[in-house]
Amino acid sequence: MAKIRSLVCRECGSEYPAKAIHVCELCFGPLEVKYNYDEIKQTISRRSIEAGPKSMWRYMDLLPVEGPQVVGPHAGLTPMVRAKNLGAYLGLDELYIKNDTVNHPTLSFKDRVVAVALTRARELGFETVACASTGNLANSVAAHAAASSMQCYVFIPGDLEAAKVLGNLIYRPNVVEVEGNYDDVNRLCSEIAGEHGWAFVNINIRPYYAEGSKTLAYETVEQLGWRAPDQVVIPMASGSLLTKIWKGLNEMKHVGLIDSVATKINGAQAEGCSPISTAFKAGRDFFKPVKPKTIAKSLAIGNPADGYYALKTTAESGGAMDMVSDEEIVDGIKLLAQTEGIFAETAGGVTIGVLRKLVKQGVIKKHEVTVAYITGNGLKTQEAVLEAVGRPTRIHPSLVSFEKTFKVGKHGGDA
Amino acid sequence: MAKIRSLVCRECGSEYPAKAIHVCELCFGPLEVKYNYDEIKQTISRRSIEAGPKSMWRYMDLLPVEGPQVVGPHAGLTPMVRAKNLGAYLGLDELYIKNDTVNHPTLSFKDRVVAVALTRARELGFETVACASTGNLANSVAAHAAASSMQCYVFIPGDLEAAKVLGNLIYRPNVVEVEGNYDDVNRLCSEIAGEHGWAFVNINIRPYYAEGSKTLAYETVEQLGWRAPDQVVIPMASGSLLTKIWKGLNEMKHVGLIDSVATKINGAQAEGCSPISTAFKAGRDFFKPVKPKTIAKSLAIGNPADGYYALKTTAESGGAMDMVSDEEIVDGIKLLAQTEGIFAETAGGVTIGVLRKLVKQGVIKKHEVTVAYITGNGLKTQEAVLEAVGRPTRIHPSLVSFEKTFKVGKHGGDA
Ligand SMILES: Cc1ncc(COP(=O)(O)O)c(C=O)c1O
Ligand SMILES: Cc1ncc(COP(=O)(O)O)c(C=O)c1O
Ligand SMILES: [Zn+2]
Ligand SMILES: [Zn+2]
Repeated sequence: MAKIRSLVCRECGSEYPAKAIHVCELCFGPLEVKYNYDEIKQTISRRSIEAGPKSMWRYMDLLPVEGPQVVGPHAGLTPMVRAKNLGAYLGLDELYIKNDTVNHPTLSFKDRVVAVALTRARELGFETVACASTGNLANSVAAHAAASSMQCYVFIPGDLEAAKVLGNLIYRPNVVEVEGNYDDVNRLCSEIAGEHGWAFVNINIRPYYAEGSKTLAYETVEQLGWRAPDQVVIPMASGSLLTKIWKGLNEMKHVGLIDSVATKINGAQAEGCSPISTAFKAGRDFFKPVKPKTIAKSLAIGNPADGYYALKTTAESGGAMDMVSDEEIVDGIKLLAQTEGIFAETAGGVTIGVLRKLVKQGVIKKHEVTVAYITGNGLKTQEAVLEAVGRPTRIHPSLVSFEKTFKVGKHGGDA
Repeated sequence: MAKIRSLVCRECGSEYPAKAIHVCELCFGPLEVKYNYDEIKQTISRRSIEAGPKSMWRYMDLLPVEGPQVVGPHAGLTPMVRAKNLGAYLGLDELYIKNDTVNHPTLSFKDRVVAVALTRARELGFETVACASTGNLANSVAAHAAASSMQCYVFIPGDLEAAKVLGNLIYRPNVVEVEGNYDDVNRLCSEIAGEHGWAFVNINIRPYYAEGSKTLAYETVEQLGWRAPDQVVIPMASGSLLTKIWKGLNEMKHVGLIDSVATKINGAQAEGCSPISTAFKAGRDFFKPVKPKTIAKSLAIGNPADGYYALKTTAESGGAMDMVSDEEIVDGIKLLAQTEGIFAETAGGVTIGVLRKLVKQGVIKKHEVTVAYITGNGLKTQEAVLEAVGRPTRIHPSLVSFEKTFKVGKHGGDA
């Protein structure tokens, strides 16, 4: 028996073969990968994982690919940073930063989902890959397509940050800049996916793609010494990442890697695009689409595909959601950099900003083991902080010029 | 007995205690860390290393710190990428990219040397750290100083890339922009280091700092399955990295981790600043200082501190050196991105450009196991490639607009 059992409709439970499909023919519900956990249970163990590759592929048994050949063999297994300074500042005893700002190769958590999506796309026989992206996904698809010699189309909104545009072009894919926002891009791509036989990683390959995010949950548990955290804070765009971290945690219990999961799943959005968090705070189990306007462009999805499931997940786990202003996003980026030496993109500012709010509200408590997911690198969204960090102090190349400007006495410091 | 024996003068062999000193009092030669290898031999093994942390600190036994507390616990252990596409393009059977573009936290190999330097600086009682930098070093010192709550001054030349300037400011150190080039900055910092009791990582802490580069050699050997490569290509600024990779390889043999080292050490510079490569090609064992003018700003050191030793090392190993034009640097960056999905900064373009030349010249041969060191991320030097990669194709958000622009038939591709 294989580890992948089928694709299953999240709404009506109908099952389908594990092909490039993503919508239920009966009820139009989204499809999700279903595994033969009894099978998996027999081979997986803490020891087997620890002996695996130093990448997210150490969790191969729980990923929807047949293997053994994979695209993106070096994605994942990023550092789990014990954030003592930031923890002390916020009043948390045990705070961790899961640092995907150094993910291989394109510096965001999207390298995880793309590694899975392209591996599966290849297994299904595709030669051309594509995606609708708020930026990071495109970078990752373009890089992995180049490395695996696949044809590539990336579709991006018209107002992307300079580094994210260049971060596509350098790999020489077809970069399609659509006059409109992400939701326009996504609509167009859904049409194109119907017309052309391409692997759109976040459309027809979405059931596989989305599973890549589970590796953040697996790594979290392993890196905390095989225990689930008490609280996690997760940035949301489509809401997929958040739902998959919850799925991943529960799978680990299900296959016997940990005994219990009592993790509260908290979601973070930007005020300028917070359809999911707004619904949650209003006690609704459905969101209203919005027109995004925020510096957190990677999270600027006004009509989130998994918004409904994100709301359900957070409620089920006993977690919370909140949102922060553009100013709070910038403050969050600066705070993380200046306490922990990690430079995050705007999505990271959203996470830190919401973490801060939830601690202040008493939702996350001092003694709780807390993990904040920092999902993209600050060099990708430089525009957002440029005005907020000042300029270097310029001096002439002389000791006198330095000492006059900085007013430091001789033999300051020690040792 | 401790693993650190002393600091020893590279010229006259005089020994000094392992303090914050870097020049021999007798002959003004540079000091280097000397170890009690007999001691180290007794504790180190492949197994002890493999059981260590997933960072460069798994080689702690061969690093000049007392421990156990370290600054920068997550630096190093970056991916060793089997570069099949680029290898095929160049005509090499077994080419690897050692990818420090995803080094934690600041995306260059400097996170290795800074982790060692700041750990040692702390052990020696310093509270203020500083550096003279061509860009990457400053970023790394600023980030690690923030994370370890140390006072920080970084000194940079006046013409640095935007991302490298921002990559300092975000951590809020004192950023001192000196009107002049790196050699001016370095001269000024040597004066300041004499006046103020600060830990200048690449001046008075240099003997410790430089040892951090050895971890690239250790990881290379371990990641190749405990064997030394036949050929390596290394970018040079001061020349320190190149000399330390050679030292690291030979230490591994010395302490019994591998049986033999027959690696040829090849050095790479930019034509606009190639004092070391020029000397090598002219058969000289000394270099003539130059005034740098190149887009490879991180390598723009006209008067390289370790230039003499780099020349010696390459000669001793039977390696070669070469240099490439700015155009070849850009081509090298694009080639690496488009074949392997790795976006390198200009220094990486220098490495790939010189690798290409050495293969063409027959210096590096088809069957030889070759490692190219890619030491910094492309998002740090975007200016260098911006004009060379074109622009996205802009379309209206409609299927018609897409198909008209891209002239792709329906149901292209397969599956
Ligand atoms: C940096 C970053 N973080 C988080 C997310 C959220 O992902 P999801 O769409 O799964 O909610 C994205 C999505 O693009 C992203 O780019
Ligand atoms: C990206 C990069 N590669 C290589 C080097 C060369 O280092 P070294 O001065 O040890 O020769 C530097 C130095 O700044 C650098 O920034
Ligand atoms: Zn259904
Ligand atoms: Zn001497």
